[in-house]
Amino acid sequence: MTANAARKPDQNSNVKWVYSFGRESCDGDSSQRNLLGSKGANLAEMSRIGLPVPPGFTLSTEVCTFFYENENKYPEHLQEQVNNAIVLLEQETNMEFGDARKPLLLAVRSGSRVSMPGMMDTVLNIGLNDETVKALGNDKRFAFDCYRRLIQMYGDVVLGVPRHLFEDVLDAYKERHSLKNDTDINAEGLEEITVHFKKIVEKETGHPFPQDPRAQLWGAIGAVFNSWMTPRAVTYRRINSIPEDWGTAVNVQAVVFGNMGDDCATGVAFTRDPSTGENIFYGEYLVNAQGEDVVAGIRTPQPLDTLKQAMPEAYEELLKVRSTLENHFHDMQDIEFTIQNKNLYMLQTRNGKRTATAALRCAVEMVEEGLINQHEALLRIDPAVLDKLLHPAIDPNAQKTVLAKGLPASPGAAAGEIVFDADRAEKLAAKGKKVILCRMETSPEDIHGMHAAEGILTSRGGMTSHAAVVARGMGKPCVSGAGDIAIDYRNRTMSVGGKTLKEGDVITLDGGTGEVLHGRVPMREPEVTGHFSTVMGWADNVRRMKVRANAETPHDAQIARDFGAEGIGLCRTEHMFFDPARILHMRQMILSETSEERRTALDKLFPHQKKDFIALFKIMTGLPVTVRLLDPPLHEFLPQGSTEIEELAKTLGLPETAVRKRISRLHESNPMLGLRGARLGILYPEIYEMQVRAILEAAAETNAVPEIMIPLISTKKEMEIMKALVERVAGDNKNYIVGTMVELPRAALAAGDIAEHAAFFSFGTNDLTQTALGISRDDAGYFLPEYERQGIFTKDPFSSIDVKGVGELVKTAVERGQAARPDIKLGICGEHGGDPSSIAFFEGAKLDYVSCSPFRVPIARLSAAQATLRAAKISSSS
Amino acid sequence: MTANAARKPDQNSNVKWVYSFGRESCDGDSSQRNLLGSKGANLAEMSRIGLPVPPGFTLSTEVCTFFYENENKYPEHLQEQVNNAIVLLEQETNMEFGDARKPLLLAVRSGSRVSMPGMMDTVLNIGLNDETVKALGNDKRFAFDCYRRLIQMYGDVVLGVPRHLFEDVLDAYKERHSLKNDTDINAEGLEEITVHFKKIVEKETGHPFPQDPRAQLWGAIGAVFNSWMTPRAVTYRRINSIPEDWGTAVNVQAVVFGNMGDDCATGVAFTRDPSTGENIFYGEYLVNAQGEDVVAGIRTPQPLDTLKQAMPEAYEELLKVRSTLENHFHDMQDIEFTIQNKNLYMLQTRNGKRTATAALRCAVEMVEEGLINQHEALLRIDPAVLDKLLHPAIDPNAQKTVLAKGLPASPGAAAGEIVFDADRAEKLAAKGKKVILCRMETSPEDIHGMHAAEGILTSRGGMTSHAAVVARGMGKPCVSGAGDIAIDYRNRTMSVGGKTLKEGDVITLDGGTGEVLHGRVPMREPEVTGHFSTVMGWADNVRRMKVRANAETPHDAQIARDFGAEGIGLCRTEHMFFDPARILHMRQMILSETSEERRTALDKLFPHQKKDFIALFKIMTGLPVTVRLLDPPLHEFLPQGSTEIEELAKTLGLPETAVRKRISRLHESNPMLGLRGARLGILYPEIYEMQVRAILEAAAETNAVPEIMIPLISTKKEMEIMKALVERVAGDNKNYIVGTMVELPRAALAAGDIAEHAAFFSFGTNDLTQTALGISRDDAGYFLPEYERQGIFTKDPFSSIDVKGVGELVKTAVERGQAARPDIKLGICGEHGGDPSSIAFFEGAKLDYVSCSPFRVPIARLSAAQATLRAAKISSSS
Repeated sequence: MTANAARKPDQNSNVKWVYSFGRESCDGDSSQRNLLGSKGANLAEMSRIGLPVPPGFTLSTEVCTFFYENENKYPEHLQEQVNNAIVLLEQETNMEFGDARKPLLLAVRSGSRVSMPGMMDTVLNIGLNDETVKALGNDKRFAFDCYRRLIQMYGDVVLGVPRHLFEDVLDAYKERHSLKNDTDINAEGLEEITVHFKKIVEKETGHPFPQDPRAQLWGAIGAVFNSWMTPRAVTYRRINSIPEDWGTAVNVQAVVFGNMGDDCATGVAFTRDPSTGENIFYGEYLVNAQGEDVVAGIRTPQPLDTLKQAMPEAYEELLKVRSTLENHFHDMQDIEFTIQNKNLYMLQTRNGKRTATAALRCAVEMVEEGLINQHEALLRIDPAVLDKLLHPAIDPNAQKTVLAKGLPASPGAAAGEIVFDADRAEKLAAKGKKVILCRMETSPEDIHGMHAAEGILTSRGGMTSHAAVVARGMGKPCVSGAGDIAIDYRNRTMSVGGKTLKEGDVITLDGGTGEVLHGRVPMREPEVTGHFSTVMGWADNVRRMKVRANAETPHDAQIARDFGAEGIGLCRTEHMFFDPARILHMRQMILSETSEERRTALDKLFPHQKKDFIALFKIMTGLPVTVRLLDPPLHEFLPQGSTEIEELAKTLGLPETAVRKRISRLHESNPMLGLRGARLGILYPEIYEMQVRAILEAAAETNAVPEIMIPLISTKKEMEIMKALVERVAGDNKNYIVGTMVELPRAALAAGDIAEHAAFFSFGTNDLTQTALGISRDDAGYFLPEYERQGIFTKDPFSSIDVKGVGELVKTAVERGQAARPDIKLGICGEHGGDPSSIAFFEGAKLDYVSCSPFRVPIARLSAAQATLRAAKISSSS
Repeated sequence: MTANAARKPDQNSNVKWVYSFGRESCDGDSSQRNLLGSKGANLAEMSRIGLPVPPGFTLSTEVCTFFYENENKYPEHLQEQVNNAIVLLEQETNMEFGDARKPLLLAVRSGSRVSMPGMMDTVLNIGLNDETVKALGNDKRFAFDCYRRLIQMYGDVVLGVPRHLFEDVLDAYKERHSLKNDTDINAEGLEEITVHFKKIVEKETGHPFPQDPRAQLWGAIGAVFNSWMTPRAVTYRRINSIPEDWGTAVNVQAVVFGNMGDDCATGVAFTRDPSTGENIFYGEYLVNAQGEDVVAGIRTPQPLDTLKQAMPEAYEELLKVRSTLENHFHDMQDIEFTIQNKNLYMLQTRNGKRTATAALRCAVEMVEEGLINQHEALLRIDPAVLDKLLHPAIDPNAQKTVLAKGLPASPGAAAGEIVFDADRAEKLAAKGKKVILCRMETSPEDIHGMHAAEGILTSRGGMTSHAAVVARGMGKPCVSGAGDIAIDYRNRTMSVGGKTLKEGDVITLDGGTGEVLHGRVPMREPEVTGHFSTVMGWADNVRRMKVRANAETPHDAQIARDFGAEGIGLCRTEHMFFDPARILHMRQMILSETSEERRTALDKLFPHQKKDFIALFKIMTGLPVTVRLLDPPLHEFLPQGSTEIEELAKTLGLPETAVRKRISRLHESNPMLGLRGARLGILYPEIYEMQVRAILEAAAETNAVPEIMIPLISTKKEMEIMKALVERVAGDNKNYIVGTMVELPRAALAAGDIAEHAAFFSFGTNDLTQTALGISRDDAGYFLPEYERQGIFTKDPFSSIDVKGVGELVKTAVERGQAARPDIKLGICGEHGGDPSSIAFFEGAKLDYVSCSPFRVPIARLSAAQATLRAAKISSSS
C-alpha cells in the first residue's frame, strides 16, 4: 500500500482532508509535498516563515486518490472542512465569499508532487457573479475585466467551451473598434464582452454561467481532479515514470490583483540565472496584468531589473524575499509574484529548473557561499542534465546564414528537417529522420512531438513560455519567440525575410544564442567548464564504485579517458571486424569448411587485432581493459544482398552457390539464443586462440594487464574449458586475468560454480534482461510501449534495470560468486551502467565498477557518488 | 569430493586397497559395488552365501582413482596387500603362484560399477611360463593349449600385439595339417604354436614374453586400469552419463578350467528367459572349452537343458544355484559358470538385461511368487523401456545399413518413401503410400504432412524442436538434427556420405536410436500384455503426482485417456488454427489493420474453436483440462512462399503489396523472445476474448470446469490484466479457474506476486530452459552435440531438466507461489513431463502433476510411482 492508498469510507470522519495556510494559522509545511503537492507545501512553508502569501487552503492528494478509488465521489467530510477553511480565509481577509459588498475572490490551482503539463492550471476570480462584480469596482473596467477573465477561464477549463470562441469575440471587438491590445478595451467594452461570454457559455453548455460562488468553487475543484486523468496528463506521467496513485492536490487561495492599475504587476523570477547559474536576480514582469498574461506571451514582459525604477519598494521587498528563500531552501528558487497596489504577494516558490551549466554553477557557487556542503551539492544535481553539457554546439568558426533570431530558450544546437506539427514530428522521427518542430507556440498537446524532435522553434513566447520550459527539461535546444518568422500551418511553410521554407527543408537551431540558421551548420564537441570539473572532482572523492567505459576504437577510448573513465569495462572485439579491410577475412573465416582453412583466415585477421589492442592499451595506460572475445552470431558478418554475395564469392574464389549454402546453413531462428559467445569458442577454439594471442602480445608490448572476458557462459565446465584455452595460449605469461560476462539467468544461479574459474564477473544486463524477461530488445518495440502505457513496466527495462527480476539475479550472482571467491572483481557493462537509478541499484549490490558509453561517463561518476551518499544515509539512519 | 576421491599419499598406510573373497575369508559383499565394481562385489557376495566361487581378490576402484590422480602411480602399500592376498589364495587352493610343481594360475578381469564396453575383459592363465607349463600336464595338450591362450590374450590386451598375427599362425597350422577346429590341434602342434606365439611377441614388442608370473600379473592389472581411459571407454561413459571418477576395480581370481576334458564345460545362463520373462532356466554351454569360446562364437553352444543328460550332478547343482541366487538377489540373474571335472564353479552373477516384455513379466511373476513386493517390482522396471512396448521397433536380428545418425527424437520405427514437402506427403499418403517426411526443419505449416507421414526426419533441430515435439505428440517416430544429411529441396534429393537419395527412395527410421537406415528394414510390432496393465495399476496406487497429457485434437486426447491420462495439462489452442478451413480466417485476423476488422475475422474462428473445445471436453469428461490461450508469434501463421502470398491476397481481396508489407512488419529477429503469449493478449485483447468465450461456452455445454492458462507472463500486473480480461468475458460464470505458465526466469522469481492473480502454475520447462540457458531449441543443434561431447551438459537439457539452473527456478517459483497462495495448483507441461529423471525432480519439487505427450503417459505413470517410492525411502532413512 502506498502512502496515498485510499481510505475506507468508515475511516473518513477523522481524516484531515483540507490544510489551511495564512498569517493566522498554517497546517502544512514544505516537508508535506506528497500530501499537499509541491505548490501547496511551499505556499504553506512561505506563510510559515513570514513571507507575504495570500491566505488559502489545500485539498490534499488523498482527496484525489479517494476520488478515483470511489467512483469519482468526494470523502464525506470534505465539504464541511472546505467550508471551515473558507471561514478562516474570510476572517483573515476581512472579506466574505459571495458577499455582495466585500466579495472574497478565490483562485483554484492544481498542484501535484511534481509540476505536470496537462493538468488544469488556474481559474482566477472565483466568486464573481452579476452581483459581486458590482462590489469590485470603484473601477468598473477592472471589475469587468476580472469577470470576463473568470468566464473565459472557467468556460475553457471547467466547462469545456472551445477557447477560440472567446478569443474570436475579443478579436472582433478590437477590430471593430480598431484597438490593438486587450488593455485598450474600455469598461463598457468589457461589460459588453462579458455579456457575450455568458451567452457563449449558455449556448455551448445548455446552462447559464453559474452564479453561485460555491458552485463555481466546486466546479473548479472537480476540474482539477478530473484533469489528473486527461490523456495528456497520463502520457506525461508515463514518459516521466510518475505513478498514477500520487494524485494531485488543489490549492484555493485568495486572489490578489496585478491588474488593478499601474501600481500593480505580476511576474516570474529565478533567484539565479537559470541558463548560466550566475548569481543574479533573473526574471520578467508585466505591469497591470494578471498571471496568465506573462505565460501567454501576448505582451512581451520586461526584464526584472527595470522593476527597480518602476516600483522601488516592491522591488526591495522582492530582493529580501529572494534572499530569504535561498537561505531557507538552500537552492535556487523559481518564484511567481504579484504586486497589488505596490504590495508584494508571493504566489509560488519552487526549486528552479536550470540548464546543466547552471546546475553545476549554482551547486559550486552555493558551496563557495557556504549555503550548502559538497555532498548536498552532489545530491542536488540531476545526473541526466550532464548529458546536455556534452551535447554539440554550433562550431564558432562555421559559416552560417542567420534566418532569424529568437530567444535562447534552451541551450545546445540541433539540425533537422522542418515539421509543423507534433504528430508528423513523431512519425518522421520514428523513421529515423532528424526533425525540428516549428510552432507558433507549443502547448502540452505537443509534448510527444517535442520528444521526437531534435530541437524546438517557436515564433511566439518568452523565456518562460511552455516551449522554453519544457525544452530545457528535456535538454533539447529551443529558440522561442522568433517573431520574424511567419508560420503557415495550412501550406506547411514558414517565411522569413522574403525566404520561404517548406516542410522537409533543413535548418539548424542554436539554443545558446537564439539563432535560427539556414541548412545544416557544422557543430562542435561540447566543452566542459571549470564547474563541471569541480563537481566531478567532488564526485570522484565520494564514490565507491569505479567508472569505466565501453569502447573499442581509439577515438572512443580517448573520449572515455578524457571524460574520466577509469578503464575499459567492455571492448567488443567483434566491432573491430567490420572495417572494410577486415570484413573479407572475417567472412572467409566464417565460410571455412575446416579448422585449417579457418586458421589461415584468422592469421590474416591477427595483425589487425593486435594493432587495435596495442592502440587501445596505449590510450588506457595504467588502467584496466576488459576485452570480450567474439560474441555475436557469425552470420551477422555475412552479406545479405545478392550483389554482396556475388562479390564475396568472386573474391573468395568460391562458387556462389557454395557461399549461399553456407550462409543459409548459418541461419538461425533466434540468433540471440544461438551459436554465439563461448559457444563459438567451444566449437571453433581457433578463433578465440587468435584473439587471446593478439591480446597477450599487444599487452606485453604495452605493459598492460588485460582482463580477458568470455561471453555467454552458463556452466562451470564451459568456463573451465575456456579458461584452459586461454592458459594454453598464454603459456608462461601470467600477466592477465580471465573472467566472464554474467548474462544468462543460469550463469547467475551457477555463479558459485563458475567463479571457481573466473577472476571477475561483468554483468551483461542487456542480455540478462532479454533472457530473464524473455524479451528480444530488437523486437520489444512491438509491445513495450503498450506495456509501459498499461503500467506493466514503469520504465523500459532495457533503460533502467528491472530490480525485481534482473536485479535479483545480479544479487544472487554477487552473493554466490563472492562466497566461492571472496576477491572476485564485479562490474556491469550493460546499457544500465549509464543509468542513474540502475547505478543506485548496483551500489546496493556492491559491485566494484560500472561501465558505460563514453559520453555517459560523467553521468555515471556523479550517479555513483550520489549512490554512495544515499547508501551511507540509509545505513546511518537505520 | 566423491566417494572415490583420491587419497592423499600420507593417508595410504591405513587404506585397504585389496579385498579378498573365498571360502576362508571374504572382505566384501554385494553392497560394495561402488568400491569393488559390480563383478567383484557379486563374487564376494556369492562366496559369502556359500556358492562355489574360485577364490580371489579385488583391487578397489579407489586404486584406479589414485592411479589417475597421481600420474599413473599405484598407492604405496598396494603391492604388499596384493602379495598378502596371493598368500591367502595359495593357502585355500593349496597351490603356489609361480611354483614349478603346483602352479596357481590367475585370471585378471576388469569390473566397474556398470558393465562397460571398451574395458579390458579378461586375461586367463596368468602364472604360466616355460617352467610352470610343464607342471600343468599329465595332459600336455591341455597344458600348451593354456599357455598359448595366455600368450595370445596377454599379447593382445596387455602388450598390444595385433590380434590377427596370432590368428594367422593358428589358421596356417590348421590349413597345413588339414584341421578344422582349434580343438583338433594336438599337443605337439600346440607346443609348436606356443613357440611361434612367443616369437611374435618378442618381434612386436622387442622383449621376450614375460616369464615372471608377478610381472605378468602387474602387467595385466596395469592393462585394466589403462583401459579405463581408452577412447571407446570414454565415449561409452559420455553417452551413458557415467562419471569418470567412478573408476574401475580389478578382479584377480584362481583359474578353473572348462577345457580339461569332456567332464568340463563352460556356459552362460539367465535365471529366466530374458526375451519373454518366462520363468524357465535359459542358457547355453560348451563342453571342454574356456570362457571366451562361448562368446567368440567359434563353436555353436548347446542349450542348457541338454546339460541335464551330459553332466547330471553339475546340472542339479546349477539348478540349486539358480534358485539360491534368485532368492538371494530377488531378481533375474545373468550368470557365468565353469565345470571343471564335474565340479561347478560360479564366475559371475549380475542382474540380467531383459526386453521390455520380459521386464514386465518378471516383475509381475516375481510378485506373484512372493520373491518381491509390488514396490520393489515398480522400482525394478526402467520406465524408458515402456516406450518400446508402445511402438514398432527394428527387428534386433535384422541386417541394416546406417546412412546417418541424428537425435532419437521420437521413439518407434517406420519405413517409407522419401518426400520433401508436406503437401506431397499428404498426397501420396492419400494414395495409400507410406512416406517419410524429410525436412531441414519443420514448422506448423507442415503439420498435415507430418500427420500423413509414417515418420519424420530433419537435418536440423534438437530434441525439443518443432518436429520432435509434434512427432512425440503424434506418437510417430522422428529422427531430428541428422546434420550429415544435406537436403536439396529444389532437386528433391538428399545426400549423405556420398550417396544421393531421391524422392521415392525408401528409408527406415529408428526413432529410438536416431538411426537413418537404408531401404526397408524388418520391424517388430508392439504388443501390450496384461502384465503392462498390472504394473500400471500398481504404479497408479503408489504415485502421488497426477499424470496428464498435452493434447488438443480429439484423436490425441482419446489416446491420452486410453493410456491413463488424468486430464489435459496443455491444450495448445494455436494448433487448432492450422486446419485449412481456419488458417484463412486466422491470416485475415492477423492482417487486420483495426480492432474491428480483427473482430470480424475472430467471429469466423469462434465457432471452430468452440466446436473443438466441446469435443475435447467431452472426451475428458470428469477430468481437468488446461487450455492455453494463443501463444506463438502471429507471423508463424503467415504464408512465406510467393504463390501462397498471392493466393492469400486474392482471397482476402487485398493488394499483394499490402499483404507483403504486413507480413514483413510482423517479422521479428528473435520471435521466441518477441510478440507472443500474453503479449498478444495485452495488445490484441479481442483474440483472447474470443478464445475465452469459446472455452466457457463449450465448458457450459459439457459441464467441464476448464483451467484457462495465460502463457508467457512475467509480471504481476500482466497477470492481473489478463485475469481481468477473462473475468470480463466470463461475467457471472464462475466455473473456471485462471492460471499461468511459468516459463520465464522472471516469472519464477516473481512467482509470489504473480500467484496473487493465478490459481495455478504450469511450468513450461521448454521455454524456461531456453531462456535460463539462453539456448534456442531450434538452433541448439549447431552446438549442443559438441557441448555433450565435451561434458558441458551430461544430458540434453531439453530432454532432461537442468536441475542446477532450471530446477532452481522451478523450486523458487514453487516456494514463492505457495507462500502467496497455499492452495495453488502446480504442474509441468514441458517436454520434461515425460522424462523419468525429470519426473523424479518434480516429485522432489512437490508438484501436483506432470503433463506429457499422450504416448509418454505410461512412462510418466511409472516414473511418478518410482519417484514417490524413492522419495519415501529417502525421507524414511533420513
